[in-house]
Amino acid sequence: MPSLPDMATPNVTELAAGRRGASRDMLAEVPDLKPAFFEWLCRMGDTTLILGHRLSEWCGHGPALEEDIAIANTALDLIGHTQMWLNLAGEVEGQGRSADDLAYLRDAMHFRNALLVELPNGDIGRTLMRQFLFDAWHHEMLGRLEGSAVTEVAEIAAKAKKEVAYHLDRSSDLVVRLGDGTEESHARMQDALDILWPYTGEFCTGDAVDAAVAKAGIAPRPEDLRAPWLAFVGEVLEEATLDMPQNGHAQKGGRQGRHTEHLGYLLAEMQFLQRAYPGAEW
Amino acid sequence: MPSLPDMATPNVTELAAGRRGASRDMLAEVPDLKPAFFEWLCRMGDTTLILGHRLSEWCGHGPALEEDIAIANTALDLIGHTQMWLNLAGEVEGQGRSADDLAYLRDAMHFRNALLVELPNGDIGRTLMRQFLFDAWHHEMLGRLEGSAVTEVAEIAAKAKKEVAYHLDRSSDLVVRLGDGTEESHARMQDALDILWPYTGEFCTGDAVDAAVAKAGIAPRPEDLRAPWLAFVGEVLEEATLDMPQNGHAQKGGRQGRHTEHLGYLLAEMQFLQRAYPGAEW
Repeated sequence: MPSLPDMATPNVTELAAGRRGASRDMLAEVPDLKPAFFEWLCRMGDTTLILGHRLSEWCGHGPALEEDIAIANTALDLIGHTQMWLNLAGEVEGQGRSADDLAYLRDAMHFRNALLVELPNGDIGRTLMRQFLFDAWHHEMLGRLEGSAVTEVAEIAAKAKKEVAYHLDRSSDLVVRLGDGTEESHARMQDALDILWPYTGEFCTGDAVDAAVAKAGIAPRPEDLRAPWLAFVGEVLEEATLDMPQNGHAQKGGRQGRHTEHLGYLLAEMQFLQRAYPGAEW
Repeated sequence: MPSLPDMATPNVTELAAGRRGASRDMLAEVPDLKPAFFEWLCRMGDTTLILGHRLSEWCGHGPALEEDIAIANTALDLIGHTQMWLNLAGEVEGQGRSADDLAYLRDAMHFRNALLVELPNGDIGRTLMRQFLFDAWHHEMLGRLEGSAVTEVAEIAAKAKKEVAYHLDRSSDLVVRLGDGTEESHARMQDALDILWPYTGEFCTGDAVDAAVAKAGIAPRPEDLRAPWLAFVGEVLEEATLDMPQNGHAQKGGRQGRHTEHLGYLLAEMQFLQRAYPGAEW
């Protein structure tokens, strides 16, 4: 497995452009930034929330105790990140919505997660392949966000990156072991890769929201993550003896609220308690 | 396939014991009957509701257009029965709850359906076997209920029985064709039967609630359905070249509110709309 990419990317300093401040100062400075910043924070928080929920579905069903616990721990880490991203989203929005409100009281069309993470788990091979493809992007993204012009974003990124480095280490290792494993495990990993690949382009495709937050120095342009993501993924896949698919990245829309049918079912389960018992607390 | 059992069973007249009246007259006559009568109506209505929902999951996924439409139609019939049973339940309870309130605003522990109908669909063979085992009971039960001492119960039963005779005709026929079919279809049907069999005993096992409504002449004792059900099922299984399982009927509790983990997930989906958008109407 190749070593993790160098996170001291040259454009981090450039990103922050010499200034850094709290989100409220940034919003005061760039008055019409608020909707895009809120939207972008939901994209981050919803993506970690939905993947965290999907992984939690494995709890008690993992193929080995070690795997079961590792996946549950990854889920917990991602839910932890969600809490930070969606708390900040609620603050930026300024309507008094908490992270819980955003997680449990929005319907599918208001979710902004990438489609990849809402797909059903499939077998353990597909779950691990999805995790690897996501982790590689996530780790790169968080590294850039450590240099964000918004203090809270940089702090969340720094905290999350430590955990995600471990996620990526683990998922890369497993992709190599299963890809370069038995005939059966190799076939399943290749199958998983072929099915998931079209969903990976969305992570590196920007729109007006991404442009606005990039311009403010909050986050990198999604397109800038493509080359390092592809390089890292390519090295791991090669070591795993898996063929990188040549088809395109047709599947997108989740980050704009256009989801697969799977998200509605996931939310029905995830939100059941707060929907059935509004305001219930421990 | 054997012809349908004779519905002019001798104890129908005995059941009504010469008197018949509206539910409100019956409740006036037997003052402490209300809780048991309400509970029994929920058992009928919840069982048809949950099976109707499970069947609706096949919509658009059937193995053939004909099957897809037939299953969806059966689902609709069962939801229709649900509306009648739960409407009457709401009236008997007298708390102003409608059939919709009972269907959409109760949680799992308040549902009274038999466990058999909440089990996941499995393959089409398992769905059809479940349907057959249920239909055979359902048809027998409705035939008895036509002689109920409560007018509304007798009327609902008469209406529903016409549809259920068709359900049973169809499911018996398919069980024979698939059981006495290819090696693969035979194996799948035997597998389905073995898995579902332990859940069938619950339909013919009475408790205090059943005893109270039987005493009032509202419904037969569940135990009295066992012999005719077993005779009919046995004939069909024999024609289908399937072996009747020799194991017991261990699985029960649904009619008392003790459910499998599957029901909660089913309700999360089924109740999503009313939970997320309380009071929403077309």
